[in-house]
Amino acid sequence: MHSIFLFILIFTICFDVLNAKVISNHNVSDTCNLDNKLIEEIASYKNVTEFIMNEIISKGLGQEMYKEYTDFIDKFGARVSGSENLEKSIDYMINLTISHGLTDVTTEEVDVPHYVRGHESLQMISPRKKNMALIGLGASVATPPEGITADVIVIKSFQDLDQTQEAKIKGKIVLFDAHYVTYGKTVIYRTQGASRAAKKGAVASLVRSVTPFSIYSTHTGAQFYDDNVTKIPTAAITLEDADLMRRMQERGEKITVTLKMSSTFDMKKSRNTIIDIKGKENPNKVVIVSGHIDSWDVGQGAMDDGGGMIISWFAPVFLNIYNLKPRRTLRAILWTAEEPGLIGAAAYLRRHLSQLSDINFVMESDEGTFKPRGLDVAGSKTTRCIIAEILKLFTPVDEMTNSGGPGSDITMIINKGVPGASLLNKNERYFWYHHSEGDTLNVQNKNEVINCAAFWTAVSYVIADISKDLPRS
Amino acid sequence: MHSIFLFILIFTICFDVLNAKVISNHNVSDTCNLDNKLIEEIASYKNVTEFIMNEIISKGLGQEMYKEYTDFIDKFGARVSGSENLEKSIDYMINLTISHGLTDVTTEEVDVPHYVRGHESLQMISPRKKNMALIGLGASVATPPEGITADVIVIKSFQDLDQTQEAKIKGKIVLFDAHYVTYGKTVIYRTQGASRAAKKGAVASLVRSVTPFSIYSTHTGAQFYDDNVTKIPTAAITLEDADLMRRMQERGEKITVTLKMSSTFDMKKSRNTIIDIKGKENPNKVVIVSGHIDSWDVGQGAMDDGGGMIISWFAPVFLNIYNLKPRRTLRAILWTAEEPGLIGAAAYLRRHLSQLSDINFVMESDEGTFKPRGLDVAGSKTTRCIIAEILKLFTPVDEMTNSGGPGSDITMIINKGVPGASLLNKNERYFWYHHSEGDTLNVQNKNEVINCAAFWTAVSYVIADISKDLPRS
Repeated sequence: MHSIFLFILIFTICFDVLNAKVISNHNVSDTCNLDNKLIEEIASYKNVTEFIMNEIISKGLGQEMYKEYTDFIDKFGARVSGSENLEKSIDYMINLTISHGLTDVTTEEVDVPHYVRGHESLQMISPRKKNMALIGLGASVATPPEGITADVIVIKSFQDLDQTQEAKIKGKIVLFDAHYVTYGKTVIYRTQGASRAAKKGAVASLVRSVTPFSIYSTHTGAQFYDDNVTKIPTAAITLEDADLMRRMQERGEKITVTLKMSSTFDMKKSRNTIIDIKGKENPNKVVIVSGHIDSWDVGQGAMDDGGGMIISWFAPVFLNIYNLKPRRTLRAILWTAEEPGLIGAAAYLRRHLSQLSDINFVMESDEGTFKPRGLDVAGSKTTRCIIAEILKLFTPVDEMTNSGGPGSDITMIINKGVPGASLLNKNERYFWYHHSEGDTLNVQNKNEVINCAAFWTAVSYVIADISKDLPRS
Repeated sequence: MHSIFLFILIFTICFDVLNAKVISNHNVSDTCNLDNKLIEEIASYKNVTEFIMNEIISKGLGQEMYKEYTDFIDKFGARVSGSENLEKSIDYMINLTISHGLTDVTTEEVDVPHYVRGHESLQMISPRKKNMALIGLGASVATPPEGITADVIVIKSFQDLDQTQEAKIKGKIVLFDAHYVTYGKTVIYRTQGASRAAKKGAVASLVRSVTPFSIYSTHTGAQFYDDNVTKIPTAAITLEDADLMRRMQERGEKITVTLKMSSTFDMKKSRNTIIDIKGKENPNKVVIVSGHIDSWDVGQGAMDDGGGMIISWFAPVFLNIYNLKPRRTLRAILWTAEEPGLIGAAAYLRRHLSQLSDINFVMESDEGTFKPRGLDVAGSKTTRCIIAEILKLFTPVDEMTNSGGPGSDITMIINKGVPGASLLNKNERYFWYHHSEGDTLNVQNKNEVINCAAFWTAVSYVIADISKDLPRS
């Protein structure tokens, strides 16, 4: 089992893709010395990529996929790790895949956390009565049934916490009022806040929701208790209430609240779903396209990660319809239990550790399926040069960034030296909806999702089919 | 008592200011034949307006006002009609005014509705279980304690309702899924939906929240039952759930929900608050600046209408500090009970009906205190020419629009022939927060509110002080 600390690290870094420095593929190309034959070979895919894109975007196939996507999202809604609903949604996608004529559909069992939130409430008692919205963080412990009534201390940062006397924290509820900078930089208050506060004697911890914008919205997400620290209840509140309590503290007002949280936690069985279009020359070598099928227990998980899951699922479905068999195997994976801490992906890595050299390239879409821009790529110089050359086929969808940590589920595989990429898209509002009731089909745009699917299918096909393997560092 | 229908009419038209055609004051000026002396007189106010604006914006007075505003908003939060909290907030503003040295502070008693929402829940049972956010509309009747369980029919418009057979509506819960066009055009589904649905036998009505944008937010507001129709429970739901149920209906799925709503309703006493700087030449003639102090029972009422209330309150406070006495009386009114249907303003009109000729001009800020743009003006050609000339003192805050219905509370006075204006400001996101938990200090920008206050104080001072009365049509 991977340690909690690895998860924390991954959660901390893997979303900084969203703030990655943009390096255009043309700049990369300038310093590349690719073999002319390879450049010509890549250019020769133009007909194929145009065909794929055209069939998906203009010939109705994308519309059909979008319908299947919205039917799926509305049928199941939120699909939380460990729930019966998630398992039914996995069955549904397996049956849908088979109904499209694909035969290489397998699942791999995974033990996953099953956290079910019960009643949750937060009432400010002093300086005045006010009910506040809150949402428990993943796998938070419960409060006693009567709740925890305690004073609140508003803390700006871990540095601020470190500099605050233990006597001022002890017995209090710590509110981490860390303002959004980037997801990667700010999410540490959600993932680590409870244990950091508990170490100084806090009885519960609240966190300002990790979002740059709010209409009184609460955003949940995973958090990880340290092993040797008291587990204290922890939840997210709105930016509005965090600001309110900070202003009250600045005025010298005593803030007292009653926090009530109940929940259950156990382990369940779930499955990663694997859909292959077997390679015609090197079936053992695989290019993976992926998204996660689970979601948080709020909203519909339409954006995170219904969109990424469906476009990844669609790549082999499309290739099968047109009998387009790439040289290598194109494998779509619908990861399970990403939200509680990349659980499905960790299980896949453990199971396939000896076959990592067969993974030619690993791709994931888990940061939105808005207007596609290109790829965020991790890999050797030559790999990046080849991808940049391939992206020229998709101008203007040809941006290439190098965030250092593309993807969420695929991060652990990439950390083992496998080159990979995540979908770059115009996702400036992604965190407005992320892990909240606002993650519904309303944030999706049909044409944008279809364009993502077209690009994702075509680019993964080319990577799976070109004669040259993507070289590792 | 003004009839319900007048309120409906006013609610329907008064917010279309927000979509008013912009007519620049320069265009208006082109067709004006103002006396040169008057033009020169108006131009001579430049020193005074610059002094006022500078003292407020640059000399810290605006900062102080903003602090008093935020202290007030945080201290009381939502201030709903009929509540003790509203009355305490009125007392607080009276005392604050007196503490600033003003003496002409009076109140006028008003009978106001007191609607208190209790438990509210909406659960979809078919085609799957899902809890849906909802918020009862003002003065909705309750459901039986066990709730109303019924099928939902999604209706696009009143035309759609008219064209639907009564048999298809009878016994159902009607969901009005009218997409936001303008507030004035769309709010009729909130104000009249319940009675329109009840006439065709519906047992309850839901309305898509009246907003162009949502992060799963619900927006309440007033609604008015027709006299001879069964009163059915009525509430607003999110855009997201309205879209979900419409898609389900389009798929032919049977939608069944359980709606539970409880509430109490009675009448209470409240007060309009009137703060005068008596005119040095014509104390009987008044120029009114106003905003309403009550709010809905969600959020903080910081935007609607804490901002408009505070900048209107600040005008006489500022003039008093500098002993700036205009020719006419400058009267600030903090209206009570605007939200349930302009109740305080209607009482003021009834009480002062014989003195309408003394109201030289009536102003209200109730559409946000974002970056100021100018004024939306109702009045005769000459009045509009004079206001346009005055606005030249405030370039670039010199836009003048003619929506036909500025203000909310002041609409009834304007309808009696009194010229008036509301504050134009960059309020494109106003309805994102309106009547929702999102109406908090977070939507306000300190500098913008201060700039509104500076403009509002200076422009109302000039109107109250110029030698010429604003002529009526």
